Amino acid sequence: MPPLSHAVILTGDRPTGPLHLGHYVGSLRNRVALQHSHDQYLLIADMQALTDNAGDPGKVRRNVIEVALDYLAIGIDPACSTICLQSALPALAELTLLYLNFVSVARLERNPTIREEIATRGFGRDIPAGFLCYPASQAADITAFKAELVPVGADQAPIIEQTNELVRRLNRQIGHPLLPEARALIPPIGRLPGVDGKAKMSKSQDNAIPLSASDADIAAAVQRMFTDPGHVRATDPGRVEGNVVFTYLDAFDPDPDAVAALKAHYRRGGLGDAALKERLVAILQTTISPIRERRATLAKDPDFVVDVLRAGTARARGRTERTRREVTTGLGLFDLHSPASSA
Amino acid sequence: MPPLSHAVILTGDRPTGPLHLGHYVGSLRNRVALQHSHDQYLLIADMQALTDNAGDPGKVRRNVIEVALDYLAIGIDPACSTICLQSALPALAELTLLYLNFVSVARLERNPTIREEIATRGFGRDIPAGFLCYPASQAADITAFKAELVPVGADQAPIIEQTNELVRRLNRQIGHPLLPEARALIPPIGRLPGVDGKAKMSKSQDNAIPLSASDADIAAAVQRMFTDPGHVRATDPGRVEGNVVFTYLDAFDPDPDAVAALKAHYRRGGLGDAALKERLVAILQTTISPIRERRATLAKDPDFVVDVLRAGTARARGRTERTRREVTTGLGLFDLHSPASSA
Repeated sequence: MPPLSHAVILTGDRPTGPLHLGHYVGSLRNRVALQHSHDQYLLIADMQALTDNAGDPGKVRRNVIEVALDYLAIGIDPACSTICLQSALPALAELTLLYLNFVSVARLERNPTIREEIATRGFGRDIPAGFLCYPASQAADITAFKAELVPVGADQAPIIEQTNELVRRLNRQIGHPLLPEARALIPPIGRLPGVDGKAKMSKSQDNAIPLSASDADIAAAVQRMFTDPGHVRATDPGRVEGNVVFTYLDAFDPDPDAVAALKAHYRRGGLGDAALKERLVAILQTTISPIRERRATLAKDPDFVVDVLRAGTARARGRTERTRREVTTGLGLFDLHSPASSA
Repeated sequence: MPPLSHAVILTGDRPTGPLHLGHYVGSLRNRVALQHSHDQYLLIADMQALTDNAGDPGKVRRNVIEVALDYLAIGIDPACSTICLQSALPALAELTLLYLNFVSVARLERNPTIREEIATRGFGRDIPAGFLCYPASQAADITAFKAELVPVGADQAPIIEQTNELVRRLNRQIGHPLLPEARALIPPIGRLPGVDGKAKMSKSQDNAIPLSASDADIAAAVQRMFTDPGHVRATDPGRVEGNVVFTYLDAFDPDPDAVAALKAHYRRGGLGDAALKERLVAILQTTISPIRERRATLAKDPDFVVDVLRAGTARARGRTERTRREVTTGLGLFDLHSPASSA
């Protein structure tokens, strides 16, 4: 894929817990690189977090600051990227409500991502209406920023597809291509497994390494890491596939040739898990410690974090409100938002 | 029911067509009376109109002004009542989206009003998501204004019930009764039938008398009016029940004793439809002509109408935004809407 320079990227996270190494590999690291060549918006999706956390808004509130801290700690530069808060951008709610009229209940229920998540969360018929509607909310987010690239995991691709269906329907009715179609940007490295070998790293599964992990936390997590159950003695030949330590080395080791040599040695036999884990511990400590230290420094100045969020949100408000106005007037609706707007 | 003086009333209309005599009897006339003793908001519900008119936003736009004209023409005084536009009140969209997380899809589908309207409109599974969600939108409208009284037809009572369910759930989670429960104000006179005798007067059924009807239009409509098919000659005894002319006389004749005498005469025989209709024509012309004339004068000054709408919307914006902030902070969410808001 050729680089789409200065293209608009919308990305973000649901503030339901601190970010961890899985996020770092899957997206955060990439955002730090992309921010210099793209117009990048990082949306802290607190309204979306509420779709399955309505009973605990306090958790969502706390994690807004935690996620903003994580962003700044990994090297997101507020001068290059815009960090903003979903609930403080009314145009997103307004566009969501508008878009819900352009999509049927049946179409929302057919969305594979929604279907899978309904099953995973065990909602059944008690699914909150907001959860069923969240593809319209994501379409509002993406189009309000006129995002051209949206970094998502492969499992989220149907959301982009549904957004683009709405974009085509709206552009057809408006009569010109006001809204761009978005392209999914699938991250180069797939999902990082949990330390226990489960497919997904997740705080709730207690198999994640948070970005605030201490050196001791990291060492303990790597000690727990799933390797090859058949590799009992160091002299035994070992399996590399499904061996979480090698998956992590692939993701984090700066020397891929050395990792290839280690894999060959492990397969032959004669390389113990302890030596491998020691290498991984050092690499992860080197990766995380500057993040953790920057995070700790920033956490001492919460006003600064809020100021960054406030400034980014103000910038995003202008952009999203402009799009809302364009969509409203493009559809031929009455726009009476501001004294300056034309009737 | 004892009068609830200075209580807050929220009422309004979907701008999908000009208002007619059915609206006048069922609600408009009452609003003119209520505006002096209540804090009354008239919401022109253009976002709700879109839930089943997404393909024709131009119709909704045009009728925003028509409905505002109707309000002013019947005697709504912008100094007493606040006329405002739903789409220009972002807090309503924001609260709607928030409330959707507190209600299940199953609960929305169980709403009798929604079920009946889905059947009437023949939506089936292709129901727009916005239509399914509109009880949450009405709950947002009602609570954003902290309305205590909501004039609705008996068929809309389940919407108030669903609003109050949400109010109780939110107040419980907030920890104090921030939002008042609303009470349905069922109009003293039931639904006015169409001139053809059908249960509902509706522009789409071509059985309505609009508030802009000319004297000739009124005479023609009354001529078409359904009476008693068995009352062939004036000397025959006639039926009063189901006789649309009498239903209209009950609703509009300022002299109920005279109407009672006419009913007795009609039942005995000897009173022709022509004489009755002549009386009704005169009464309706007297009712409508000042409205029509005021409407024609106002229609020459569309800027004035827009100014009224703009001023009312600005006032409503303050009120609804304040409630949104109270709900947001009451639930313990982050509120980053304005530079002045506390983090």
